[in-house]
Amino acid sequence: MNAPKTEKSDNSHDPRLDDDCPLHWFDADRGAFEDLERRIAEHPADFFASQDFDPVGACATREAQFASVDLPEDPTAPQAHADHLLHDVFRHVMPVASPSFVGHMTSSLPSFMPSLAKIVAALNQNVVKLETSGALTGLERQVIGMLHKLVFAREGDFYAQWLHNPEHSLGAFCAGGTTANLAALWASRNNVLRARDGFAGVHNAGLMAALRHYGYDGLAIVVSERGHYSLRKAADVLGIGRDNLVPVAVDGDGRMRIDKLRDTLGDLQASNIRTMAIVGIAGSTETGAVDPLDAMADVAQEAGCHFHVDAAWGGATLLSERERGRFAGIERADSVVIDAHKQFYVPMGAGMVLFRDPAWTQEIIQHANYIVRKGSVDLGRHTLEGSRGAAAVMLYANLHLLGRKGLARLIDTGIDNAKFFAGLIEQQADFELDSRPQLCILTYRYVPEPVRTALVSASTPAETREQIQQALDALTISIQEMQRDAGRSFVSRTQLTSSQWGGRAIAVFRVVLANPDTTRDILQGVLAEQRALAARSPMLAPLMALV
Amino acid sequence: MNAPKTEKSDNSHDPRLDDDCPLHWFDADRGAFEDLERRIAEHPADFFASQDFDPVGACATREAQFASVDLPEDPTAPQAHADHLLHDVFRHVMPVASPSFVGHMTSSLPSFMPSLAKIVAALNQNVVKLETSGALTGLERQVIGMLHKLVFAREGDFYAQWLHNPEHSLGAFCAGGTTANLAALWASRNNVLRARDGFAGVHNAGLMAALRHYGYDGLAIVVSERGHYSLRKAADVLGIGRDNLVPVAVDGDGRMRIDKLRDTLGDLQASNIRTMAIVGIAGSTETGAVDPLDAMADVAQEAGCHFHVDAAWGGATLLSERERGRFAGIERADSVVIDAHKQFYVPMGAGMVLFRDPAWTQEIIQHANYIVRKGSVDLGRHTLEGSRGAAAVMLYANLHLLGRKGLARLIDTGIDNAKFFAGLIEQQADFELDSRPQLCILTYRYVPEPVRTALVSASTPAETREQIQQALDALTISIQEMQRDAGRSFVSRTQLTSSQWGGRAIAVFRVVLANPDTTRDILQGVLAEQRALAARSPMLAPLMALV
Repeated sequence: MNAPKTEKSDNSHDPRLDDDCPLHWFDADRGAFEDLERRIAEHPADFFASQDFDPVGACATREAQFASVDLPEDPTAPQAHADHLLHDVFRHVMPVASPSFVGHMTSSLPSFMPSLAKIVAALNQNVVKLETSGALTGLERQVIGMLHKLVFAREGDFYAQWLHNPEHSLGAFCAGGTTANLAALWASRNNVLRARDGFAGVHNAGLMAALRHYGYDGLAIVVSERGHYSLRKAADVLGIGRDNLVPVAVDGDGRMRIDKLRDTLGDLQASNIRTMAIVGIAGSTETGAVDPLDAMADVAQEAGCHFHVDAAWGGATLLSERERGRFAGIERADSVVIDAHKQFYVPMGAGMVLFRDPAWTQEIIQHANYIVRKGSVDLGRHTLEGSRGAAAVMLYANLHLLGRKGLARLIDTGIDNAKFFAGLIEQQADFELDSRPQLCILTYRYVPEPVRTALVSASTPAETREQIQQALDALTISIQEMQRDAGRSFVSRTQLTSSQWGGRAIAVFRVVLANPDTTRDILQGVLAEQRALAARSPMLAPLMALV
Repeated sequence: MNAPKTEKSDNSHDPRLDDDCPLHWFDADRGAFEDLERRIAEHPADFFASQDFDPVGACATREAQFASVDLPEDPTAPQAHADHLLHDVFRHVMPVASPSFVGHMTSSLPSFMPSLAKIVAALNQNVVKLETSGALTGLERQVIGMLHKLVFAREGDFYAQWLHNPEHSLGAFCAGGTTANLAALWASRNNVLRARDGFAGVHNAGLMAALRHYGYDGLAIVVSERGHYSLRKAADVLGIGRDNLVPVAVDGDGRMRIDKLRDTLGDLQASNIRTMAIVGIAGSTETGAVDPLDAMADVAQEAGCHFHVDAAWGGATLLSERERGRFAGIERADSVVIDAHKQFYVPMGAGMVLFRDPAWTQEIIQHANYIVRKGSVDLGRHTLEGSRGAAAVMLYANLHLLGRKGLARLIDTGIDNAKFFAGLIEQQADFELDSRPQLCILTYRYVPEPVRTALVSASTPAETREQIQQALDALTISIQEMQRDAGRSFVSRTQLTSSQWGGRAIAVFRVVLANPDTTRDILQGVLAEQRALAARSPMLAPLMALV
């Protein structure tokens, strides 16, 4: 049976409203927003390429635009507000869907995504509980199950037994990778310090009581020095402390060194610090490096600690038959984080945490009288977050509309493009590749030929070499900012310990090639633009004076 | 200057694709989704009222639909997938926008919201940093400033000084109220155990080291027994422990008792437990009760502890000149949480945390080389979450298109409707009002007249009275589930200590009147339907046998 048919409100006959203050609720004047939809959402890359669009100076000039803290008293007419949004807001966002903006992890989206986002917003379901989400509760569990199988491929009747079991969960959607990592490490902490022998467990008694009961002086999370900053935040939030996120050195390819990992575990044990979790990075944010997951799983197993894999960026690589071998060992993790809003190409923000064993969520389960009741199938019983939108629908659609093969094509294309670009950089006499792409990310910098000659020459004093490196850092930063401000193209930048320069931290350009519309011509254009910008940079002359 | 114009991809000429696996990326076949948009997003309440729509049995029947964990290998044609989404998914969601579904905190949305959600998804900005959000960074700070002024109304040049100050933040958007409460209490914990005298602070050294340094045996958060379950979760996540979220008894109107609060603080001090925060509820989830905030602020000030107000539900009431007096004292809070996806009528999920003093965010600040750099205006430096979508745009649009007066009208209408419905219930001989509406929420139950007579009669033995209450609980649950399963209308239910029944916890219907299209006829229909369902409920006979 159906809900009763309602009349659309008509302001002129609505007893709630008076003429002085029309309420734009279900009014008829939606044309303004439909026009905005056509101009922007039809094909965002075209909007970004149009004459209207102007990302330049969005920071400096925008503060004046957004200075008032007074609430508007009266309603603004829809057309006037739509015009304002177009001219003062959307015209000055960042063109992340532009194929020449290759510095971000969010790129372009499939064409049907904005439509689906509109429908999801209109339905406004809340997946925290069945009563506000209906079929979407089952759909989210299925999508989590699909991803779980992609990662863990559990056998027998595992999925038949657990997929829709209300007392358990194979994982959850989260707002993003940060909350997904936090959720995984929350479950980890609550498992390692769980209830036993009359002790109520860390979740009930708190961390000090738990550490006293277990006889530890602290907990530690061990991760490579390339771990995402969200892990440090998680260590802070969970009461473990940022100093107890212990970094392990990486090899020349940016992968955790297993010998250093073993040293670290030994040191922690000697200090009576319990290693709560070892975290593997499967696609580092800065260079796309993938840790030796299988060897790390061995160490975690020996040490009897949680093995977590942060695959927020790289996880989608598992879709590619050609590339998934790089992730061998991920199926041995206790928990894995993957972001759908990265290489699964759904809109912001959709992270996922997956638990190998459904019992893991027992330590974070909760309930309330008015929601997420005991015994219910409500998803909110097992999640860090409470009320949530139906982000799972977007991923569900992409998995079907693109298929595994289509998504794999996107992954492979990105990696092919990264290899092409790395080769192109190596062919240039005045560019230096810093990190070779494992996935579709790479780093490099502009180094004029005489500078490179001086840097590698045995006759250049160490002090001069260091001065050159500092001047190169300044030039790299200058070029990146000039390129950003010109608004034609974009690469990001970071600072990385460089194995080819004796472990010195150097500033580098960082490129992420996730947009399938990024052509090889565009990449050649990025280098040409950077070379031209270098010639105009005020940081070039001080550098050249050193050689 | 603008990004280069790109050609729209045409699959037939795309070298990335082969005929065996067409990639639905920017393909032409978007008609299927545009049709879905028209059917659903144009006017969701009409969709919910259409013959197609069928929420009944969404739980039981849907598990079979969502059982497979195998990823689809090949792409599905857009029309086929759109049909599948309509018939197997969207047709079976919950009609939260229907005016007869009065049990949820998410109701209907202004007509332009789905369009705006489509545009925001297409732009796919990430407000974690300026480089991926442009003007939206300034816009979010402005919206936070507007809400900050609504709550705190700081004077002088406060907003000119702080609104766009990169080193500080007046608050943040969060995925929802749960993460917003967590963020506020995270800042609270890090402030109370901050760095001093050579101690590195809880954020660096962890909770055990911090409590040892400060000489406490634990931390506590004090809140009324009606506090939202997200606070218990926050106490768990932060390492404080769920047992250290200490509940304080409420009065007959569901408001925290100040005498009991003082007792609690005394008990905690005697146990060497530091009271970290006192939490006021401004619109409880179950009954909409507002704590005596001003008196609580006095107590928090005397005790020298953080005063946090959870106004996730009720915060929007501040927009109403008529009603905002109920919140007197909220301006003295150190932090306040408000959800935009509740009575600010934006789509899921948009929570906000606001800090009275911008210095509060100093204890949670972070940075990384590749993102949220020191000195940058990047919003991600001050947030619990990392990458986030531009939810602030939705609230910005509602504040302008409805205006403060329009939003206030919605608030006042909801409260008026709740008062009307409470009066209607009191006129019925066979319904019992349990909580009188302070905001637009109320609770009640169905009590046949002879049962009520027996309950209040001095001659009924206490044991029989208790049997009657148990049978009434069973009847209430039965009616609520029958009504839900019939699918014509919906009220939620909860279990509350009842002052009129000597503090016994009783099951009650819970109604939230936030949808402005809910007419008084619909409310009369809800009672008529419940009366009819009661007559058919198998739980009626066992109840009547007791009287």
